[in-house]
Amino acid sequence: MGRPARQMKLGAFINPTGQHLAAWRHPTAQADAGVNFKHYVELVRTLEHGRFDIFFLADVLATIPRTGESMASASRIAHYVGNFEPLTLLSGLAAVTSNIGLVATVTTSYNEPYHVARKFASLDHISGGRSGWNLVTSSNADEAYNFGLEPYHQHAERYERAREFAEIVLGLWDSWDDDAFLRDKEGGLFFDPGKMRTLNHSGKHFSVRGPLNVPRSPQGAPVLVQAGSSDDGKSLAADTAEVVFTAHQKIESAQAFYADVKSRAAQRNRNPEGMKIMPGVSPIVGRTRQEAQDKYTQLQELIHSDVSIALLSRMTSYDFAQFDPDAIVPEIPSVEGLKSRSEMLVRMARQEGLTVRQLAMRIAGARGHWQLIGTSEDIADELEAWFRNGAADGFNMMPALLPETLDDIVRLLIPELQRRGLFRKEYEGTTLRENLGLLAPANGSRFATS
Amino acid sequence: MGRPARQMKLGAFINPTGQHLAAWRHPTAQADAGVNFKHYVELVRTLEHGRFDIFFLADVLATIPRTGESMASASRIAHYVGNFEPLTLLSGLAAVTSNIGLVATVTTSYNEPYHVARKFASLDHISGGRSGWNLVTSSNADEAYNFGLEPYHQHAERYERAREFAEIVLGLWDSWDDDAFLRDKEGGLFFDPGKMRTLNHSGKHFSVRGPLNVPRSPQGAPVLVQAGSSDDGKSLAADTAEVVFTAHQKIESAQAFYADVKSRAAQRNRNPEGMKIMPGVSPIVGRTRQEAQDKYTQLQELIHSDVSIALLSRMTSYDFAQFDPDAIVPEIPSVEGLKSRSEMLVRMARQEGLTVRQLAMRIAGARGHWQLIGTSEDIADELEAWFRNGAADGFNMMPALLPETLDDIVRLLIPELQRRGLFRKEYEGTTLRENLGLLAPANGSRFATS
Repeated sequence: MGRPARQMKLGAFINPTGQHLAAWRHPTAQADAGVNFKHYVELVRTLEHGRFDIFFLADVLATIPRTGESMASASRIAHYVGNFEPLTLLSGLAAVTSNIGLVATVTTSYNEPYHVARKFASLDHISGGRSGWNLVTSSNADEAYNFGLEPYHQHAERYERAREFAEIVLGLWDSWDDDAFLRDKEGGLFFDPGKMRTLNHSGKHFSVRGPLNVPRSPQGAPVLVQAGSSDDGKSLAADTAEVVFTAHQKIESAQAFYADVKSRAAQRNRNPEGMKIMPGVSPIVGRTRQEAQDKYTQLQELIHSDVSIALLSRMTSYDFAQFDPDAIVPEIPSVEGLKSRSEMLVRMARQEGLTVRQLAMRIAGARGHWQLIGTSEDIADELEAWFRNGAADGFNMMPALLPETLDDIVRLLIPELQRRGLFRKEYEGTTLRENLGLLAPANGSRFATS
Repeated sequence: MGRPARQMKLGAFINPTGQHLAAWRHPTAQADAGVNFKHYVELVRTLEHGRFDIFFLADVLATIPRTGESMASASRIAHYVGNFEPLTLLSGLAAVTSNIGLVATVTTSYNEPYHVARKFASLDHISGGRSGWNLVTSSNADEAYNFGLEPYHQHAERYERAREFAEIVLGLWDSWDDDAFLRDKEGGLFFDPGKMRTLNHSGKHFSVRGPLNVPRSPQGAPVLVQAGSSDDGKSLAADTAEVVFTAHQKIESAQAFYADVKSRAAQRNRNPEGMKIMPGVSPIVGRTRQEAQDKYTQLQELIHSDVSIALLSRMTSYDFAQFDPDAIVPEIPSVEGLKSRSEMLVRMARQEGLTVRQLAMRIAGARGHWQLIGTSEDIADELEAWFRNGAADGFNMMPALLPETLDDIVRLLIPELQRRGLFRKEYEGTTLRENLGLLAPANGSRFATS
């Protein structure tokens, strides 16, 4: 028996009506998906049928309009307005699923580590070991105004706070030995005080005593996910991330990122296999190429003329509406905020000579992520090339339209990946770590003297 | 057709293994209940079978040991150590229930109003209109240390912050008109900007812009619950509470509280029927009085000698271990913290000439709440007397031992209350407000100029 073949890990990044800007207008879209619990129950059941690893939710702590957006265009966009809060939604979904990993985005900029550690540990218990935290920092100025703060400090300081935040959360998750809760009815001892650890953290941004009031969770610790691709982001990921989401349009860029982050992890004496790098991809799959292209075209034609440039501005935190939409995208200064994403888009536009309108329409579909349109074979070829050539350990799929695109993926693409031996036919286990092949952190390791 | 007879509202206040200090040691107890999701699923199903209005969770943002507790005694107590976080638990339970109201305690002292408004609104959507927020302030010094703060300011300042916090949450819940989300696929308009309201709150403790990123919830607003019985607490309840939990051992005290809070509400031009006052009660019901008494005695005998005085100290935030356990309870100074509860207990002890140990054992059972031990007729007589004589609109039941005491209540006591016409046989509706008979706040009312 040889070592089992390496297989892809697959996440599903779910915007309520789909990743495409105009998805909500499609005749088959569930337009009220943002607060339709039954819609999500159907999606996660489809994902479990397709043996996906992760159901993943982004988050924003504000609504619209945002920088660079008029109310007129904001009111035509369904993303991040009128949705469930991620941790309540995932907790509800935990009750009706058995294998899918449940990953929510929570910012370190406008939260307290004790609350965050507690909620993800609780979700890990509720789900039997399927929770994950996507750690982000907040660049969105509009979030600050909901928390009594001026728009958040510089990029580097956001990451400094995030790093301390993550250390505390990891420490709190390690508050108890696995066997600390004796629950010895005869002896009358509920827990063993010798198996409780008090964090006593005192740092620049936070002071947190601990211990956490939740027992060590089924996974030892929820899975730590990150998506930053700036230098600060990659450095933090190399230190702590177990899953890395990232955005690339070309294999060369994905390979460079993959090699960079894995080597940073190795430099920190981490096993590079303990970190799964999963680029985003928005596949539109058809039984024929024409069918796939028709699906894409139908969505593109639903984009209202006002909103693609507004989306571009929202995604980059930069006001593109100030430019002539039919002129070539100009050089723009380095932007605080979604830094690496903005730079990638502007670089791509200038390389290809796109106008502002053309860039906006291009990104409107996958909202800045890698888009594949074709048959299951076409798409599997591309994913396999990235997977086999040092660009990805798996993919974070962003279905353009829900539930339709996800149904197509599970009906057409997943079986093709399974035929090629690239993806599981049955779950390896019931926890997210078991399915991702990630070890739990050693119990007590956050408190070991080094 | 006359007006339907007034009926009791019933909540269930659930500690994982039960209200009794030693419940976890009982042979039938689910000792790992704090993180056993299946245990809770069974409890809420029993509650829906019994037609309860509310499943209610307390909360503490810290673990043990607390003021006045040694680790030796803390490690023998199962309350508030090693439990689920309430909002994640309730969200999970929402997915597997259809009628029971889901009320979680969240403190205003160590949270941000935007997060709190959002989570309860989200739970209201997930549950189809069954969420409620039990607003508390934090007197527990140990919570402060998990949030980088010194133990929280004085009683009055805690309530000042709570009042501003509640105003903001109510405003955020009113961010959108019920019909703001048009989701007009043909016209391409997702929401109507004219039906969105921006709070722009700027006050002493908080600055919050809004609007909330969740549509107005099925109940209009989650139900607002409070439990403070100090003067500040009653004043805040009179302004905002729709359900009031309270602790009384005697009908006279409950009547005085009831009249006081209802008249304060009337002075604020509120309809007193828009506020349900529900004293806590811990009924131990048997088919005979002897059976009930035996159940109680069995639990009392399981109390470890170290822990009853520790519980008394924890509940009152006052160190009773400093006194001779066999001397009469001394006068103690007014205590910051769980102020009214402490005073009530010490007053009762001195009136009855109890020793410290006797007081501790007395409260260990119901943990300071009204305890009834008897047949379903005995207990229904008492509840009926309180209900018909201006002491209660219903009760918050605190089952001593889970699931056993709750099963007894639903099997024996509920049918007796139903026979007397004191309690519903079927739910009036599917939302918590419908069952409680509470109107939704008028949409836009938080923004009306007055």
